[in-house]
Amino acid sequence: MNKSGKFYGIGVGPGDPTLITMKAAQILSKVDMVIAPAADKESLALKIARPYINCKVIEMNFPMISNKNKLNDIWDKNVKIIQEILKEGNDTAFITLGDPMIYSTYTYILSRLCGYEAETIPGITSFCAAASKVNIPIAEGDAPFAVIPVKDKKLLEKTLKDFDNVVLMKISRNYDDVVKVLKENGFCAVLVTHCGQEDEKIEFDLDKYLGRGVSYLSLIIAWRDKK
Amino acid sequence: MNKSGKFYGIGVGPGDPTLITMKAAQILSKVDMVIAPAADKESLALKIARPYINCKVIEMNFPMISNKNKLNDIWDKNVKIIQEILKEGNDTAFITLGDPMIYSTYTYILSRLCGYEAETIPGITSFCAAASKVNIPIAEGDAPFAVIPVKDKKLLEKTLKDFDNVVLMKISRNYDDVVKVLKENGFCAVLVTHCGQEDEKIEFDLDKYLGRGVSYLSLIIAWRDKK
Repeated sequence: MNKSGKFYGIGVGPGDPTLITMKAAQILSKVDMVIAPAADKESLALKIARPYINCKVIEMNFPMISNKNKLNDIWDKNVKIIQEILKEGNDTAFITLGDPMIYSTYTYILSRLCGYEAETIPGITSFCAAASKVNIPIAEGDAPFAVIPVKDKKLLEKTLKDFDNVVLMKISRNYDDVVKVLKENGFCAVLVTHCGQEDEKIEFDLDKYLGRGVSYLSLIIAWRDKK
Repeated sequence: MNKSGKFYGIGVGPGDPTLITMKAAQILSKVDMVIAPAADKESLALKIARPYINCKVIEMNFPMISNKNKLNDIWDKNVKIIQEILKEGNDTAFITLGDPMIYSTYTYILSRLCGYEAETIPGITSFCAAASKVNIPIAEGDAPFAVIPVKDKKLLEKTLKDFDNVVLMKISRNYDDVVKVLKENGFCAVLVTHCGQEDEKIEFDLDKYLGRGVSYLSLIIAWRDKK
């Protein structure tokens, strides 16, 4: 029997194609197969990775649905396809936006892929790219910081009591609440949407989007106003 | 009068030279001057950046001392040197390990450099690189996470009550306390030292270094044991 292929999880960074690492580009250029998350148009991750890819690409569907059983079935099916590809001896790269170890579908795949050699290549996170773009530090010195995918208004309130530096992710789900709680707790903030992409938006006046909503690929960097 | 040069803050990543981004390498190759933090031997940041540099390098001393007045004087002096270089029209890159917006000397320079055009290039953080190396996610789904440079045992204890996922930085200052508090709060953890460098160490048995200490470039990724 042939040796199984190696599985790579590759972070391609936040959106700006030049923020891919040398290592990610080098591995993409030598693997036998690339798996990309499917999207309506070409996925952003695939757009970034495309110039380095010399092999077949499979677009795989990972829908954002809340039904856990349905989701599990889809993941299991996708993992089976990946296992078949690996068994045939193909080195295979799974590409993911940002960093593979922070809020990525990749870790769910990885945890189901027992018995195969796997290597993960880190990527620039969206919050590091956003902080660089606005030249505002996420944290300095000995200050801790928290990263919160905002789901629960209560958790956000609690965290803003305890931390002076926070990054808020997945804010499109309850943007108006987020803005209100930040204000009530005396935080300054900047909203960054589609960081590094052509339609990037940077907004310090968070009220501007109240009642209008923001895109899924938005985040807020916030810090306690010490004036 | 000539136009002033542009100031770049460049994250060169955590230590593995292949984890530098395309953008960082490209800017390093075109600037007129590079400023690197001085070290006893060649600084790690400079070692990573060296292959891309085609210009003069100035090594600048940023001592880790606690006397704030002394530190301010040194920073002011260093910033003056950088301003002189920029005034002469030199595009100048300041290189920094990891990401420039997370616990980097760069942000102290940037905040003193009013009136000059500045662009920051994000880098792979040490904690993303470490998580990838051990294939352990920092956070999944809607789980928040906290990053703590451990100074205060009390703050650590509080954070471990509130978060299931934490990254602990600067742990060399009080390693034994950190290990004790993690255990008391039922956390699993992995210690990663010199991630991506030749002398990298990965250790799941944190007791091994009790009483012996760990290097400054060490961090812990920890998660609540849900068994």
